[in-house]
Formats: sequence, structure tokens, C-alpha cells
Amino acid sequence: MKIITQLMKSSSRGVFLKPVLKPLLLGSARSMSADVTSKYNFETLKVTQPKEFVTQVEMNRPKKLNAMNKAFWSEMRTCFQQLNSDSDCRVIVLSGAGKVFTAGLDLTDLDTVAVMQSDLDPSRKAFMIRGTIADYQETFTVIEKCTKPVIAAIHNACIGGGIDMTSACDIRYATQDSFFQIKEVDIGLAADVGTLQRFPKIVGNDSLVRELIYTARRFHSDEAKEMGFVSRIFPDKESMLTGAMDIAEIIASKSPVAVQGSKVSLVFSRDHSVREGLEHVAVWNQGMLQSEDVMKAVMAGMEKKTPKFSKL
Amino acid sequence: MKIITQLMKSSSRGVFLKPVLKPLLLGSARSMSADVTSKYNFETLKVTQPKEFVTQVEMNRPKKLNAMNKAFWSEMRTCFQQLNSDSDCRVIVLSGAGKVFTAGLDLTDLDTVAVMQSDLDPSRKAFMIRGTIADYQETFTVIEKCTKPVIAAIHNACIGGGIDMTSACDIRYATQDSFFQIKEVDIGLAADVGTLQRFPKIVGNDSLVRELIYTARRFHSDEAKEMGFVSRIFPDKESMLTGAMDIAEIIASKSPVAVQGSKVSLVFSRDHSVREGLEHVAVWNQGMLQSEDVMKAVMAGMEKKTPKFSKL
Amino acid sequence: MKIITQLMKSSSRGVFLKPVLKPLLLGSARSMSADVTSKYNFETLKVTQPKEFVTQVEMNRPKKLNAMNKAFWSEMRTCFQQLNSDSDCRVIVLSGAGKVFTAGLDLTDLDTVAVMQSDLDPSRKAFMIRGTIADYQETFTVIEKCTKPVIAAIHNACIGGGIDMTSACDIRYATQDSFFQIKEVDIGLAADVGTLQRFPKIVGNDSLVRELIYTARRFHSDEAKEMGFVSRIFPDKESMLTGAMDIAEIIASKSPVAVQGSKVSLVFSRDHSVREGLEHVAVWNQGMLQSEDVMKAVMAGMEKKTPKFSKL
Amino acid sequence: MKIITQLMKSSSRGVFLKPVLKPLLLGSARSMSADVTSKYNFETLKVTQPKEFVTQVEMNRPKKLNAMNKAFWSEMRTCFQQLNSDSDCRVIVLSGAGKVFTAGLDLTDLDTVAVMQSDLDPSRKAFMIRGTIADYQETFTVIEKCTKPVIAAIHNACIGGGIDMTSACDIRYATQDSFFQIKEVDIGLAADVGTLQRFPKIVGNDSLVRELIYTARRFHSDEAKEMGFVSRIFPDKESMLTGAMDIAEIIASKSPVAVQGSKVSLVFSRDHSVREGLEHVAVWNQGMLQSEDVMKAVMAGMEKKTPKFSKL
Amino acid sequence: MKIITQLMKSSSRGVFLKPVLKPLLLGSARSMSADVTSKYNFETLKVTQPKEFVTQVEMNRPKKLNAMNKAFWSEMRTCFQQLNSDSDCRVIVLSGAGKVFTAGLDLTDLDTVAVMQSDLDPSRKAFMIRGTIADYQETFTVIEKCTKPVIAAIHNACIGGGIDMTSACDIRYATQDSFFQIKEVDIGLAADVGTLQRFPKIVGNDSLVRELIYTARRFHSDEAKEMGFVSRIFPDKESMLTGAMDIAEIIASKSPVAVQGSKVSLVFSRDHSVREGLEHVAVWNQGMLQSEDVMKAVMAGMEKKTPKFSKL
Amino acid sequence: MKIITQLMKSSSRGVFLKPVLKPLLLGSARSMSADVTSKYNFETLKVTQPKEFVTQVEMNRPKKLNAMNKAFWSEMRTCFQQLNSDSDCRVIVLSGAGKVFTAGLDLTDLDTVAVMQSDLDPSRKAFMIRGTIADYQETFTVIEKCTKPVIAAIHNACIGGGIDMTSACDIRYATQDSFFQIKEVDIGLAADVGTLQRFPKIVGNDSLVRELIYTARRFHSDEAKEMGFVSRIFPDKESMLTGAMDIAEIIASKSPVAVQGSKVSLVFSRDHSVREGLEHVAVWNQGMLQSEDVMKAVMAGMEKKTPKFSKL
Repeated sequence: MKIITQLMKSSSRGVFLKPVLKPLLLGSARSMSADVTSKYNFETLKVTQPKEFVTQVEMNRPKKLNAMNKAFWSEMRTCFQQLNSDSDCRVIVLSGAGKVFTAGLDLTDLDTVAVMQSDLDPSRKAFMIRGTIADYQETFTVIEKCTKPVIAAIHNACIGGGIDMTSACDIRYATQDSFFQIKEVDIGLAADVGTLQRFPKIVGNDSLVRELIYTARRFHSDEAKEMGFVSRIFPDKESMLTGAMDIAEIIASKSPVAVQGSKVSLVFSRDHSVREGLEHVAVWNQGMLQSEDVMKAVMAGMEKKTPKFSKL
Repeated sequence: MKIITQLMKSSSRGVFLKPVLKPLLLGSARSMSADVTSKYNFETLKVTQPKEFVTQVEMNRPKKLNAMNKAFWSEMRTCFQQLNSDSDCRVIVLSGAGKVFTAGLDLTDLDTVAVMQSDLDPSRKAFMIRGTIADYQETFTVIEKCTKPVIAAIHNACIGGGIDMTSACDIRYATQDSFFQIKEVDIGLAADVGTLQRFPKIVGNDSLVRELIYTARRFHSDEAKEMGFVSRIFPDKESMLTGAMDIAEIIASKSPVAVQGSKVSLVFSRDHSVREGLEHVAVWNQGMLQSEDVMKAVMAGMEKKTPKFSKL
Repeated sequence: MKIITQLMKSSSRGVFLKPVLKPLLLGSARSMSADVTSKYNFETLKVTQPKEFVTQVEMNRPKKLNAMNKAFWSEMRTCFQQLNSDSDCRVIVLSGAGKVFTAGLDLTDLDTVAVMQSDLDPSRKAFMIRGTIADYQETFTVIEKCTKPVIAAIHNACIGGGIDMTSACDIRYATQDSFFQIKEVDIGLAADVGTLQRFPKIVGNDSLVRELIYTARRFHSDEAKEMGFVSRIFPDKESMLTGAMDIAEIIASKSPVAVQGSKVSLVFSRDHSVREGLEHVAVWNQGMLQSEDVMKAVMAGMEKKTPKFSKL
Repeated sequence: MKIITQLMKSSSRGVFLKPVLKPLLLGSARSMSADVTSKYNFETLKVTQPKEFVTQVEMNRPKKLNAMNKAFWSEMRTCFQQLNSDSDCRVIVLSGAGKVFTAGLDLTDLDTVAVMQSDLDPSRKAFMIRGTIADYQETFTVIEKCTKPVIAAIHNACIGGGIDMTSACDIRYATQDSFFQIKEVDIGLAADVGTLQRFPKIVGNDSLVRELIYTARRFHSDEAKEMGFVSRIFPDKESMLTGAMDIAEIIASKSPVAVQGSKVSLVFSRDHSVREGLEHVAVWNQGMLQSEDVMKAVMAGMEKKTPKFSKL
Repeated sequence: MKIITQLMKSSSRGVFLKPVLKPLLLGSARSMSADVTSKYNFETLKVTQPKEFVTQVEMNRPKKLNAMNKAFWSEMRTCFQQLNSDSDCRVIVLSGAGKVFTAGLDLTDLDTVAVMQSDLDPSRKAFMIRGTIADYQETFTVIEKCTKPVIAAIHNACIGGGIDMTSACDIRYATQDSFFQIKEVDIGLAADVGTLQRFPKIVGNDSLVRELIYTARRFHSDEAKEMGFVSRIFPDKESMLTGAMDIAEIIASKSPVAVQGSKVSLVFSRDHSVREGLEHVAVWNQGMLQSEDVMKAVMAGMEKKTPKFSKL
Repeated sequence: MKIITQLMKSSSRGVFLKPVLKPLLLGSARSMSADVTSKYNFETLKVTQPKEFVTQVEMNRPKKLNAMNKAFWSEMRTCFQQLNSDSDCRVIVLSGAGKVFTAGLDLTDLDTVAVMQSDLDPSRKAFMIRGTIADYQETFTVIEKCTKPVIAAIHNACIGGGIDMTSACDIRYATQDSFFQIKEVDIGLAADVGTLQRFPKIVGNDSLVRELIYTARRFHSDEAKEMGFVSRIFPDKESMLTGAMDIAEIIASKSPVAVQGSKVSLVFSRDHSVREGLEHVAVWNQGMLQSEDVMKAVMAGMEKKTPKFSKL
């Protein structure tokens, strides 16, 4: 007891609190006016803010068919971690520049292949490989950890890693001409960055899921819609992006406390029993129901006005 | 060892068993002839027995659009706990009186709002709020704990708490004109009485689930059917209730030991691994396969007769 | 959207909040001055408040060796549910009146035995028996659900149900002359109200645990201490109660938000992985660190004073 | 330390390794040329190898409508355990000989019924019954434990145990005239060999699942397709078997390391959280990515050739 | 419906039940009189029945220090599976013939080593190795699955696999001169047949557990007792076997329904949350409380006689 | 298929593998010769390599009693992440410079306090606080994620965060004069960086655990040893460091594949059922048993030499 209290004597309440708080709170204020592109400066991703509180993340290696190279695996992670604490962002639309959404893993740019081919002792290789897999898994898990809803807007090819990635998104829209391929068995491996874990929990036809995984055959937008992998089909990329932005705008207009709490609870509940999910959301809401957003939303509802929510 | 045996000396087997047993067994016998409405006397619910072993629970505040007020949250819990041990009830049909199924939470009648608005210390508010949420959660969890199948018969509006409630039912039927709304983000909060836990485990289109939750938009009977939330659409309320009663009657004619064991196992298995679910049903059936119902059912099958099962 | 907003029109914010809030907050205020004995009026339990915020619950059928009869199973549940929301109670000491702590289950007063002996169909008996077991389990689980620490003060015999009950307590103290017996196999059954679940997770010698359970042999205070079931031995009942009260008083002087949050997290974490336990306490504390108690405690520490915490 | 090293002195590295290895490796080599029918000699099953690496298992009691008798429950287990380690088998097609796929449990040939009817003490019956249930459950769980994909090709009736069995398969195809019935409540029991555990996790319409289970009503191929239980409908048995063989051939042409790793991960991930599933596949692939199949597959892809994979 | 009933017509109730039942029930009757040694005929194990209902399993390769060779891994599994359904066995004492309890894995007799050394593709080796590990794990898991309590009586060396094996037993006794060694890191591997899973859940000093595992140092009987791995120390092997037999005899005199139900619940509860453990034992006891043993035990208790329980 | 193969055409196998591999493998080679202190340059930590493969991490703010400030929370994380992939490190000894091990949280240097005191909306505060807690939790979880064993060498005061930190270590040694305090309730909060999750799973006396947590009283080295929190007591800091280094040296001499695999399995198994732990270690070892270390270790054992293992 003595030790702690001695440590504290030298500082009075007023002194140590104020200076710390200021930059902390200003920080988020300043971020509002900052230019989104300068904040998010990536080689493989283009980040823009087409509407208030709506961020678009575009995979941006069109000449390489947005294949996932080493820079991508690292930048995606950084990008979504940053978006997670950016109060100007409430919803994210994830799309691909150029002709296709993504061709998946860029096999020309992988350390793992080098490790696999080396003469190292198998157990030492294994430690290295596990490290890389864990890193790549985290790249897509950050999409899920990011508390803001992520809408994948898919056109043309969505292959291999593209399925892993979009399975970690909240909502999937696609163009009429889009097609999908769970490619991994074709390159001699079991998918290991999320498809086998998330894809079957998203759709309602396990028989089809397994056929697609074991055969690596293509499936098209209509089959994807019927099985519940995507929820809307649009005639082309442009109309899809418009549609995605419209939904994004609606979500962005809601209380971010409510929307992000919903995502946290949905992700938690998918992986736990109903009872555990209920306990979790009760503990979550014991704090969150004290939000000013509840009263703002209720009042606005009564007055038939659109509420404006503070940044989060 | 001594203590227990001494306690017992004073009573002989014959003496202490008989008197206890009689009222216990008569109790369930008497309940058979009792008038169901007098047994189930509620302000917000109307309970009737349209067919043998079939109970109808009707939300009964039509002028308030069956909005869920404090009395409702408490009465539902009591009602289903009572039905759970009522041997005259084998199936429950849950419907709404008046124009709509339910408008959801009655915001005009909530203690929680008062707590939220008070000047209490945030941690003390949190303890209070958690208590209330836990109580409300229990109100719908009793539907699931009740071992008898519950059929929700939904017409017109089913909003907010209505989704939480019907997600805890076994079977959902709806009228052509019905519509649904996961309303919670519109009042500034993450749904906390079951929708986020149960709804996504019921249907097979997670992309759509999340769109509906984040946007709070309405969806209609056909979309509800397509996504697997309801399994039958009827032209109107009357035909739906007839249809629900017909199915209820069929279920009521089956062995209650078999049907209720199936529900217990289904609910358990949803929340556990397949292996755990198998172990559970094996332990359950090691006792239940000794039921007279098995031989009754098999014999009736061979003789092409309809078996009659004892009360449970 | 319309429906909810229409419902709300008729009430303005000021109107519906105020009247609800008043009794709610007064309620907890009034409970402070109320006489504890009149609030807790039981046949088998005596409830007193020996010190501020410290409640003593005494099993009170000394002539029957505090054997657990039907009234006890019901009253314990009610008592601890009530204590859980009583802001005058921060710690509970659970003891037994008379010569022994408890002789365990009162076999002369059990419906279950009657059911077992009846001619009912085995599956129908099973449904009845499961109901009773679940009720009895809940009687001790409420000790764990009650967020206030419970100290068991054990003297002389602690048999059968006594082990189940004290295993659900937080802290166990015992007198030198105390002895314990996991009696259940001696009456032909596997213990089913908590010993087999909680006891092995409390102590650190599974080999001994199983010997005690399979043989139903007595073990004494020193063995109980050595294996980690009790943490302190006192010469006699009087000194033990004094010791228990002293510890209870210390706990009662701490922030109830901190102490009760700790219990909630301990119970949760015992049953979950470390990772899940960490996530749970993070969600818990995101609200609870906003408590006034934190600053009160820190300030008091710096000023070397004893903080006074508001009721919870 | 001494003890082990002494044990080892007597054998030098070269000596003890070689002789052991030879038969072990030859063993799998020899199995290649062996006649599949002589290896798999069963009373109730006919096992053939219509294509390289494709095994067909046909239930073969057409006069008894392929009803599941005692021999069947035992032979299925043996058959799939054997197939699991047969390197000539990479995919399995499971079908039924004669007019129907299967009529389910053969009630005329069951020990359990005898046990149920006996005068044994209920607890002793329970131990016996649990043993039998566990055995029967294992009969279908081996389909899931077998790392090779299993395609069920269903025609006409698929009743009772047929649902339990096909729910444990990976892919389900059916003929236009096929119908299904979760029969168990009609014989007075809750299904206990897998339907209640696996069926609801396969499809995306829980409302319909429960209706089918509680009513035991038949459902037909189109309803089965719509709810996601089967993924393809064929006009008749012949075209279905051709279709199933075509898919089987495609799967058999892929890397068995990749396909079987995918099945292992899919089954594991169904029963665990996404995070746990990801950790599992990372540990799995830390070894498996060292497979020669990866480079073979990648090289073949680049050269637009079909790779040939070694036996597994 | 038709199909099943047609199947049944040809057999009447009386006909199909009787003949099946007889051998089934006689089977267990006959086993009683059979000579235990002829029933349990093993190369590496000696099985005797020193007292009624008490079976002794002795590892019996004294010249090889009871090292675990291929025959052992297979015979242990068979032996305990057989004991599990042998109604003459209610408790098992597991001991070692000769100078030591066991030297652990017999490295001179292992296929795995051959596989490890071969030129096979690493992924194909991995499939083979996993099969062997799974088999060896099952060898000790059967000790746990066997519902009868198993007492390990350890003298002198208990090394490597000996720790894995005894960690799967219920109770561990040891001689004063016994010593233990978690040997695996010394042969270059992480223990994989149970020590890392079971050992830390048995004792109450995780710091010591990890020191022992990482250093592979010996620890002696007193340290084993202090940390809670063994619960009794005896001066020598003879006195230990006498002590173990005495405890075994006591356990054998109790209701086997009660004792074996306790073991099932203990094993289940170790691996589940308290809540799940409680639900499991409630479902278990809903059938088991109908046992004649309950009344026999209670009556015997009242009359201060020793009850005699039927075989199980 | 086309897309991927096209991507690959431009690179031949030899070309893309070699250049990538070289720096990767050289990287780990170079790290060997690098000066450890220059690699690990921290403000609050001093990192040295007293023996080959043994790293010492010393908390290094002696004037501040090694209180945990913002820099510390960040540097610890970085330090252990770096050590995790440093092949020169096989074991870590964690100690404190100066008079005490650590005084715990540095309350004078915390953003969280500022946030707590601000006027922000409670739900927005909650999001911020949760972020900070999660970061701090990760600081100690990295100790557990680091696959190398960590030995805590504790002298004098180990308070608050010190308990959280050492509970995440593998082995705990302490000096005679050391004392411990689970301080958190004294500053008004439930411990939230690991104590409530890990501490009770380490020791075998839950009654004492809860007394210490609820009262925040100090406990001394002997009580810590008796309850199993520390496993060795040394007379003073110097002898303790010598003792810790000796054990560290022994561990460092073992196969790192074996030791680190053991840690991974121990941590996994603590949080899963025995069955899941066994499956996990089987999948782990299917790759790791192919390690050269196994044969090296076995050969060295037979030849009574000390094996030398390659870097990992």
C-alpha cells in the first residue's frame, strides 16, 4: 500500500490529468479535417471517403489483377487497424480497381514458397511457415475485429484469397458477371486464411460448400446469391458501387454506438453459445445504454427528425 | 455415516413415501380437467386451448399494437414456465391479437430509460441496467427452455422485440402481408434480448442478416421466407392460424417424450459441437428409451393404428 | 418506423421519465434503513447484519442438524437472490446454528424419493426428477450468481449437500474439529448438486479428490486445509466467526464495484479460456472504470485516508 | 536417463529402422494391386472401385429395403475405418441397391429393444442402452472421421437412419423421385444417431428443420434442394450415379493432401470458433505446406498440365 | 410410414424379443463364473482378480522394465475396453511387475521412428504419424473412458509414458522410493499421449509442472505428494499394494451405479463449464436415480447393514 | 485457373525462389552474431544474454520501483514479440532492477485516467477504455504467446500488475523476503490484465485465491510457495538469479523444438478439454516428429553425449 501511495504523492489530480487529456481528445478532432488520402498512403490500396463517414478501400494493383502480394498482406492489416480507430469512418466499402476484383494469392511474391523449398529441418520450416500463416490470417481477421461494418463490392473474378477476404466482411454484393473460385486445392493445399472457417458459417447449404471446396470449380453470381454468399446482384460495377454506397450511407447515418455494438455482438455470438452471447451483450449494454445516442435516437424518432450522432 | 442413518431411523419406508406421492401425482391429474383460462390469468396475454394438448398464447394489447410493456415482460416468463410443467400442453401457438403481431418494445413503460437518465454513478447504473437486461433476456429464453414446441404465427408488423421473441420459437409461419424490422439501431442500441444471438443461427444468408441489422430496414414475408426465417406463408391471418393449428395437432398426437426430447437435444446441439451433442442425446436416451411410448408407437405402427400416449 | 414513433408521440420525455425514476431510486434508499430480520423472514435460515454491509446467513434447524429439507432448498434460493440486490449487503458469512454445520440432505423430506418409488413410466419419472435436480442445483448456483463474496464458516460436520453448498462459496474457513464427507455414493447416487463440478476445480490434488468421492470416507480439517479446500483453521466456532467477520469487514470496506466485478470475472474465467476471460473483463471494465470509486480510491490512497463508497 | 539409454544400446540405428520400414511401406504399395472386392468383404455392403481412386459403397440388402440391421451397424464402421487408410481410395460414393436408398433402422433386428423390454433395474438397462447408442453413433461418425470426401447418392426413400447417415456425408445428391422422412418421433424417440446434431448445421432454415423433426412428415427432393440439404437433383438413379462419379473423379484428380486437409479443417471448424479453426489449420499446414504436392500443383498449373499426385 | 410397418409385420413382438434377450443377459451372467485370467490373455499384461469386483492389471515385462512396446499399446486398449463391460470388475489396480513401474516408451520397437527416417514426402509422413499418435493416445484415454475407478500403484521408476498413463488414472499411490520423470524433451519431442493435457489439471502448482516438463528432471515421491500428483506414500511395494487393495475393496462395496456415475461426471466436468457439468449430471441422474441401488443403500443405511448391489 | 497460371508464366521456379530465400535465411544467421543489447534497445527494459540461448529481461526503472508506465506497456510487447523470433533466445529470465521487483501500475502516467475523468459521452469513453485495456492485456499475453519458457525471478515487492505479469510466465521463483499484493480492489477496480484469469488456474487453493483478491492483503513468499504460486524460494536475489540461470541453462540445452512445442501445447491445453488438447498435440507432432532433433536426441542418449541442436 505504501509504495503506490508514495508514487502518487508527487502528482496532484489536476496536474496529471489535464495535459494528457488534451492531445488525446484533440487528436480525434483533428483527424476529422485531415485529408483521408494523406492519412492512408498505401502501395496496394487506395483509400477515399466518397461520403461523410463512408470510407472506400480499393485494391489497387489492376495490372496484376489485384493479386495479393507481400505488400498487400501487410498494408491491409495496417489499413483496417487504422480505420478501426478513425472516427471519420463508420462504414467501409471494399472493392477492386480494374477488370477483376482479385485473382487471389500472388504466387510470384511469397516467402513461404522459398521456405518450403529450402533444405531446412522440417520442424524448423514448420515454425517459420506457421508464423507466416498466422500473419496472413490476421490480415483478414482485422476486417472482423474492425468494429465498423465492411461491405464487399465484388465484380468479375473473386478467386482464392478473395473468398477468404470477403468471407470476413459483413455484407457481400456482386455484379451479374462475377464469378468465384475456392482455388486452394488446385495449388495443392487446404485453404488456411479463413475460407474453411467462415464460408460455411455464412451460407445455408453445406453440401454445395463442400462440393465447391473439394472441386475448386467456379461458381457464378446467381449460384452465390442462391446459396446466400452474396445478398444482392447488380447489373454492373457502377450500379453496384452506387448501391453499396447507398446502403453505406444509411448505415453511416445510424448511431455508431449501436451499429458497432451490433457488429461486436454478432461476431462474438457466431462463435459462442446463445447463452454466452446473451451474457456478453448484457455486459456490453450495461455501459452502452448510458450513451447519449439512445436518447438522441428516441427523441429524433418522436419528432420525426434525423438524429445527428457525435463521432466515435 | 451415523448422522444420516440416525435421521432416518424415525421414518419407515412406507410411512414417508406414500403421503408425499399422492398430491404430487394427483396434482397433474387435476390440471387436466381445470379450465385453462382460469389457470392462465394474465393482463397482456390470453391463453386458450383450441384443441387437445394444443395451447394458444395470444399477445393481447391490440390497442397498443401488442407493444411489450413491463407487465408483458414479466407475464410471458410466468406463462411459459407454467406451460412447461402443464401436462395438458404439448404444443404452443404464439400469436398477436388485433391488427399487428407486435410493435416491439413499449418505450413509454420502461424503468431502464429512467435509470439511464438519472445522475447515478455510471458503474451503479450499469449494475441496474444489467439486471434489467438479464430479466428481459430470460423472458424469451423461457420459450426455448420450455420443452414443448412453440409455433409463432405472425401477421402484419413484427418489429424489434418481435424478432427477438420469434427467433426463440421453434417454427415461424407468417401471412402474406407481414413485415419485419430489426429496429434496435434506430433507437440507438445494439439488440440485446436475443436477435443478434439467435437470428443468424436460424437462417442461411449472413450477408443479408447483417444488412438488415445495420440498416434497420423492413423486410417482407417473401424475403423472410427466402432467407429461411419463416417456413410458410399464408394468404391471411385466419388461414395461417388454421394451418398452424393443423401442424400443432399433428405434433400433439406424437409421443410427448419423443417430441420434447427432440427439442431439448436440438437446443443443446445448436450450442455445442456435434460430438458433445451426440454424447448428450446418448445420456438422455439411456433413460428415455425405457419409455412405454416406444413400444406403444412401434405396436401402433405395426397395427396401423394411432397410438394414444399418456400425459407428460 | 411509423409505429414506434406513433407510440411515442403521446408521451413527452419529461413526463414519462420522472415518475418512474423516483420510487426506483427511493426503493434502494429505503432498504438501507429497513430492519434486516424483517426483510429476511425464513423458517430454516436466520439472517442478521452483525456489521455494516456484512450479512450473516445462519442455517437454523439445529435440532435437525441443519439437514436440508424442502423449505431449505427453496428459502436459500430466495434468500441469496434477495441479498444479491440488497445494497446494504456487501459480504455474506454462511454458518450453521447448533452442534454441526450441516448433516446434508434431509432424506425424510423429499418428493424425489416418492417419484422414484412410484409406478410411473420411467421416462415420465425422468422428466419429474430432472426438474427437481435442476431446482436444487439452482439453490447453490445462486450463491455463485450473487455478486457478493460468500464466506462459509464451517464447524463440526459438513456432509453431503454441505460440500456441494460450500463448494459454491468463495472462501471456506473451518474449525479444528470440523470434518467433511462426500456422502453421495453411500446413498447410491452420484452427487448432483455441484460437488463433482466445483470441488475438483477448487483444490489441487485430483488423486485425493477422487479417493474421497469414490469411498465417501470422512476427511478432517487438516486434510481439508492441506488439499486447499479450506484456507484457514480456527480453534473453535467462536474464534472462527470472529475471524470470518474480520475478513468480511475488510472486504466490505473496499469498493463494492471493484469487489463484485472481481467475483463476476473470477466465476466467468473459471469456466472459459484465458482469452475469453480477458475479453469479458475488458468489456466489463469499459463501463466500470468510469466509476466514481476509482477516483475515490486513488485519492484516498494518496491522502492515506479510508475511502467511503456509495451503496451499490 | 540411464534406463532408456540402456534399452537402446542393444540396437543400432541402421539395424532397427530398415526391417520395420519395409513391410510398412510395401503394405500400402501392395494394396494398390489388390482386388477391392476381396479386401472389402461384407454381408450388407458391396464395395467396388468404378474409377481410379474412387470407391463406391453400396448398401446391399435390396429385399429388406436396405434397412439397417445389426450386421450393417458393425460393417459400416469397419468399412469406413478401412477406407480411411486405403491409399487407393480418395473419394467415396455411398448409394443403395434396389428400389430405395434405405428404409432406416431395421426394427426386427435390435438388441436394444430386448433390453428395453427386460425386467432389469432401470439404471442397469441405461448403462446397456448407452453402450449401444454410442456404438451406433460411431457407425456414422466414422464417415466424418474418414478424411476422404463422401458423396451420398440418394434415390427414392431415405428414412430415419438414412437422414442420420447422409447428414454425416460431405455432399448429398438426389433423384427427382427421392423423398425423406425424419421418422424417429413416429417410433416414440428422439433421433439419437446424428440427425439432431448435424442436420440443422447443414441447412439454412431452422423453422423448417424443426417442423420436419416434430411432425415426421415426408419431404421431397425439391424441398430438400431448396432448404440446402441436397445440392443437386438428377432425373433418375442412373444419371445421378453418373453425375456423382464425374464429381468424384474430379476430386480424385486433386492433391489428396489438399482435399483431405480441407475435410479435416471443415469438420473441425464446424465445431469450433473461427479463431480456433484458424489456429488449427495453421498448425496443420505448418507441416502440410511442405508437401511435394504444392510444387507439383503449382508447376502443373504453370505448364497447363494435369498433375499426378503420389498415393496418400 | 408404410415401409417401416411392412418390415415389422412379419415379426410379432413375442417372437423377436425373447431369443435376442437370452444370450445377451446370460452373457453377463456367465462372465461371472469365468476365470479372469483366461478371459484376459495378454503378452504384456497380467490380469488377476485378487478380491471380489477388484481387478489387478499388472504390466508384465519386468526384464524390459515394463517399457511400452507395440504389443503393450494395443493390449492396454483391448484390456480396458474389455474391463469396461465386465460386470465382475468394479475397480482396477494398475501396477508394474519387477523392479520398476515402467521405463516408458520402448524406443526399440516403434514404427513411427521408421516412418520419421524414411524418404517419404513430409505430408505423407505426417498422415502416418498422426495415425500412430492418435492410436497411442487412445490407449491411455480408454483408462478414462472406462467407467470404473483406476488406482495406479507406482513403485520405483515411472518415466515418460508412465506419467501419461498414470495421469489418466483416477487415484495415484506411490512407494517412498518411487521417482518420476517427464522424459519427452530429452528425446526431442513434446509429450503427445496425455501428460501435457492431464498432468497440469491434476495438480496445484503450475510453476513446478512447467519446470518439470521443460527440464525433464526427476522428481521423487515426496515432491509428487506435495504437489498433489500422488495422494499417498507407502514404505514399500507390498504395503502399497495392500493399501491400494483396501481402498479398492471399499470402493467395490459401494453401489457401482453411484461410483461409475461419479467418474463419468468427474471426467465430463473437468472438460466443461460448471453449468454444463450440472446439466449433464441432471440428465444422467434423471435416469439413474430410478436405480434400485438408491433404495437399497438408504435402507441399508437405516438398518446399519452393508448393502449388496447387483452386478452392473 | 488461367489467371493464376498466367501470373506465373513470367517467373521460373529457379528465379523466384532463390533471391527471396537468401536474405530470409541469412537474416537468422546474422542475428546470431549481433549484439543483443543493440538489438533490444529500450527505455524501461534492459536485455542481456548471460549465457548461450538464455536471455535476461530486466525491468529497469529502479528509482520508480519499476512501476509500469506507458513506455513499459509498449516496450514489453515489442520486446517479447522480438524475442519470440530470435533464434539466439531459448529461455527468458524476467527480473527487476533495484530494490523491488515491481510496484505495479504507474498511476501517474496513464491516459485511461484522463479519459475516465473527461466529459465525454459514457459510451464513447467506453470504446476508448476498452482499447487501452486490450492493449495492456496484450502486453502480458505476448509472454504466453512467446513460445520460449519465461522464468520470473521475483524479489521484494511484486504488486498489482506484477501479479498479472508473473501469472503469464511459465515458472516463478522468489526470494525469502518477497511479498505479493493483488492490489486492484484498493484502487477501485477489478483486475483486468490477467490476474483474475490466470492466477486461479495456476494454484490449487481457490479459497485463498479469493481471499487475497477481495482483501488486497499482502502475502509472503512462504504462503506463495505453499499455495503453488512460486515453486522455489531462495535466500536472496543473487542466489535466486543464479538458481534461475542454472535452470534456464538446462532448458536451453534441450531441443528447442521439443521445449517450445511443449509450451505451445501446455498453453493450448489449459484452455481446452483434454480431448481437444490431445487432437492439437497430434496435429502439432505429425510435423514436428520429423525434426532432426528427435534422432539427435535419441542418438546422444544412447551414446551418453550431450546433443547440440540447431537454432530455431
